Amino acid sequence: MSMKTNDIPDIVIGRLPIYLRSLRRMNQQGRQVTSSQELGERLGISAAQIRKDLSQFGGFGKQGTGYNIEFLANQLEAILKLDRIWDVAVVGAGGVGRALATYNGFHHRGFQIKLIFDNDSAKIGQEIGNFTIQDSADMKEVVREAGVKVAMITVPAKAAQEVANELVEVGIKAILNYAPVNLAVPPDVKVQHIDPAVHLQRMTYYLE
Amino acid sequence: MSMKTNDIPDIVIGRLPIYLRSLRRMNQQGRQVTSSQELGERLGISAAQIRKDLSQFGGFGKQGTGYNIEFLANQLEAILKLDRIWDVAVVGAGGVGRALATYNGFHHRGFQIKLIFDNDSAKIGQEIGNFTIQDSADMKEVVREAGVKVAMITVPAKAAQEVANELVEVGIKAILNYAPVNLAVPPDVKVQHIDPAVHLQRMTYYLE
Repeated sequence: MSMKTNDIPDIVIGRLPIYLRSLRRMNQQGRQVTSSQELGERLGISAAQIRKDLSQFGGFGKQGTGYNIEFLANQLEAILKLDRIWDVAVVGAGGVGRALATYNGFHHRGFQIKLIFDNDSAKIGQEIGNFTIQDSADMKEVVREAGVKVAMITVPAKAAQEVANELVEVGIKAILNYAPVNLAVPPDVKVQHIDPAVHLQRMTYYLE
Repeated sequence: MSMKTNDIPDIVIGRLPIYLRSLRRMNQQGRQVTSSQELGERLGISAAQIRKDLSQFGGFGKQGTGYNIEFLANQLEAILKLDRIWDVAVVGAGGVGRALATYNGFHHRGFQIKLIFDNDSAKIGQEIGNFTIQDSADMKEVVREAGVKVAMITVPAKAAQEVANELVEVGIKAILNYAPVNLAVPPDVKVQHIDPAVHLQRMTYYLE
């Protein structure tokens, strides 16, 4: 993978995890080879788009023989830096934070939750799964010391920007934000937003 | 709003809920007027893009005076058909289903959860917030009778497609899918996917 990865459009990078998920699923089903046609049908993306996306990283398939699923999945994991496990901090131990902390679907996809914080004294010290909820007041120190780079924010909207600021200050470079508010971060920090109401709202437009 | 809405690209529709969320937040903060510049700075989108998006639905701002926040938010809600409350069915009463069922952020954004289903006999009959978990075996009949059009799927990956098929059969037209698998649905049904691992994976590419 020795190319100028900085030139790849973010929208292409955004599709790679979708390809990867589908490939790993075929893998589990005992499949060995696939094609851009089959992937495209599964994902509602054109085969040409998939071939173009993958060609940005070099060729992964031989003309006429398709893609080796295991090989392509491994390559995508290397590109996405998922050939390691990233530690994750969760800030906010409400319903969403708890659901994330007990979700068993992260580890085989490159992530493990290591820390969970809340500022509610009734919650601090409680156990969720294997974690003890820690005091948000200690968050900066604990995150910095642990060297964690990835965080999920599940606090109320009004607190989210301040939490993000503190996380960025201690070295967090990727934030998955569940608070229903847009976060402002420096250019070297990545943010993704998950807001179920936003996802629902973009579908109701099409309903009768 | 009398224009051929079918011509508007889906990517534009996808930005409207983001604009709406930001406008409602300004509204709460007591603000009355904003500009495409300010909105753009808050959202990391260019002012020109915002003006172009909004111009697809007619003009909402007067040259030089910006946008009236309340008016523009109301117009966006009408465009997105959020000037009503949509009933929602949740299928799967695990951690995510429970977090969604007790989340109080839906109602003021156009949605209310009405039904929740699970196929686990240990869960059926249990209360979550104001809901009683119903048997998935009754899902088709109950959803059809209630006339619900919007659903959230929070079942394991291997069960999600079958649940989606059943929901589509009884009239569901919009699905928010939390299962980590791509769903195939007919062209008149909309699907949005929320998969935290996918969101995390598209950020790790950029990490050192």
